[in-house]
Amino acid sequence: MTQNINLAVIPGDGIGPEVVNEGLKVLDAVLADAKVSTTEYDLGARRWHATGETLPDTVLEELRGHDAILLGAVGDPGVPSGVLERGLLLKLRFAFDHYVNLRPSRIVPGVETPLADPGEVDFVVVREGTEGPYVGNGGALRVGTPYEIANEVSVNTAFGVERVVRDAFRRAQDRPRRKLTFIHKHNVLVHAGHLWRRTVERVGEEYPGVTVDYLHIDAATIFMVTDPSRFDVIVTDNLFGDIITDLAAAISGGIGLAASGNVNPDRTSPSMFEPVHGSAPDIVGQGIADPTATVSSVALLLEHLGLDDAAARINDAVTADLAERGSAPRRTSEIGDALAARVSS
Amino acid sequence: MTQNINLAVIPGDGIGPEVVNEGLKVLDAVLADAKVSTTEYDLGARRWHATGETLPDTVLEELRGHDAILLGAVGDPGVPSGVLERGLLLKLRFAFDHYVNLRPSRIVPGVETPLADPGEVDFVVVREGTEGPYVGNGGALRVGTPYEIANEVSVNTAFGVERVVRDAFRRAQDRPRRKLTFIHKHNVLVHAGHLWRRTVERVGEEYPGVTVDYLHIDAATIFMVTDPSRFDVIVTDNLFGDIITDLAAAISGGIGLAASGNVNPDRTSPSMFEPVHGSAPDIVGQGIADPTATVSSVALLLEHLGLDDAAARINDAVTADLAERGSAPRRTSEIGDALAARVSS
Ligand SMILES: CC(C)[C@H](C(=O)O)[C@@H](O)C(=O)O
Ligand SMILES: CC(C)[C@H](C(=O)O)[C@@H](O)C(=O)O
Repeated sequence: MTQNINLAVIPGDGIGPEVVNEGLKVLDAVLADAKVSTTEYDLGARRWHATGETLPDTVLEELRGHDAILLGAVGDPGVPSGVLERGLLLKLRFAFDHYVNLRPSRIVPGVETPLADPGEVDFVVVREGTEGPYVGNGGALRVGTPYEIANEVSVNTAFGVERVVRDAFRRAQDRPRRKLTFIHKHNVLVHAGHLWRRTVERVGEEYPGVTVDYLHIDAATIFMVTDPSRFDVIVTDNLFGDIITDLAAAISGGIGLAASGNVNPDRTSPSMFEPVHGSAPDIVGQGIADPTATVSSVALLLEHLGLDDAAARINDAVTADLAERGSAPRRTSEIGDALAARVSS
Repeated sequence: MTQNINLAVIPGDGIGPEVVNEGLKVLDAVLADAKVSTTEYDLGARRWHATGETLPDTVLEELRGHDAILLGAVGDPGVPSGVLERGLLLKLRFAFDHYVNLRPSRIVPGVETPLADPGEVDFVVVREGTEGPYVGNGGALRVGTPYEIANEVSVNTAFGVERVVRDAFRRAQDRPRRKLTFIHKHNVLVHAGHLWRRTVERVGEEYPGVTVDYLHIDAATIFMVTDPSRFDVIVTDNLFGDIITDLAAAISGGIGLAASGNVNPDRTSPSMFEPVHGSAPDIVGQGIADPTATVSSVALLLEHLGLDDAAARINDAVTADLAERGSAPRRTSEIGDALAARVSS
């Protein structure tokens, strides 16, 4: 059956366009029966410098018409902190209700790890994407005076927590180990923590085959470096998820390999896939950025669209490439070519 | 000159009393000219089970009369999450204005690390202790219904941020590398983040000899495992500090070695010193808990009281003991005896 994929592409800044290029190369190579049409959107630091715009409403509405979005990376040192994060990246996650922020970690042969003895590592973090301390519900009084007070409000709802917890249980149920680790800090953040905790308990009753474990976020960072093989599926809030996924990336190959999906499981709007790394202005234009994270994000995109075979082919290609790449540096396009060759053979 | 130290001791639960015992043993051994008188306070899970009390006001006032407090660990699985944390530990930190939560990390010979190649690690985290998401300023509506909403408010003030930032700069100034890393997430938590950031910039002008570096908390966890030797002094908020210090402990010997001080640098109330680890109910009563973290916390206590020589003797004893302890397990009291012998010789 032929499928048309109507893809919006936001290459962004820095190495963003370089890695997206390879991601699309591999996507083209892997799809035999499906057709991809891409529309590029110029968003990010360049556009902001030129026009002061981050995400005009008209562009948001155009993006909404697509099946999925592939994003490279946005930002440069000239944009004030928070402008593109709040005005573009988070705005997309919130507008399109990306309540599942999906971030897998694996250590396979060839993956570098700073750990002396990591064991077998293969887990996925289900990070909540539309609530918590990320909602932008805060403010400041008497800014710049000795009497300044600046607040940030973490907002958590039964609706928002339940849907992401349910998604995590479903994923745990589908994996061989069927284990869910819930991470929070419910001994200090008692209100949000107890809502999360009660929800995990209640939803868990519907998944008797899934073993549930709890860790405070501080303890979770310890286990992430002393015993990462204990993790299978992790579910946590937006901020704790941000932190634990970067640490997870660090122990499993670095952010050069870390893929992510901002997923709306209900498919009421397009999901967005992007590497975890940033625009890396220090290496832009040299053609040396590793596109693997973007290529793996394309696999997450295909999975989301139901093209599981194509996704698996990409994941296998990445695993094989990692095992054989050795330590000689390769150029961005060489890695992309190698992966494209593997998926089409 | 003879100094009288009027010490309040909260042994607590689980292994708390076991490790505090050794801490006091080493304290007695190290002090030649100073005299210590200790008063024990029964606080923690046992008292809560017996009386429902966490920290009665009268006890709080008695504690206030002491020069310092030494705490072992509190808690057991029978106490609901949050009761002792909010009702005792955090209550003490807030009541006594422990705005500097001090947590040093070092890798010296004999210290185990899960990292393959950590490099030279010797840094201290200055964690804010009286503001941020820990203030207990949150609440929930419609609890237990599908319409529940649970909020947590992070409160940050110019007053509170400036004093801890100033303390961190002072410490950085006094160390050979003179480097301060400020950790936050100011691209998302813009109000709190920008207050912190402006404060670090402004106070930094008074310390031109100190190099200042910034990391988002997520990136900081990456560097903590890929390049921990880059850190000298870290300053951060209460929650980020909680997370990064557990990770710091994990890479530098585990929480069995991690010491901490809840410090009021203005000395308007007693500071409190405690190991970072918990009450470890799984190994209680076996005499196998490592008291090193408590002994190192005693060194922080002595430093705070101006007894720098005694503190250095303890730190040297710990370093020497670590280098020679090997992998044969020793009992809690054996380690305490060995450290006591070293400091008094
Ligand atoms: C850029 C920033 C807003 C973002 C986040 O904090 O979610 C990034 O760190 C990530 O993890 O995708
Ligand atoms: C027990 C808990 C309240 C505490 C904290 O979160 O500060 C602990 O984790 C610590 O780091 O001292």
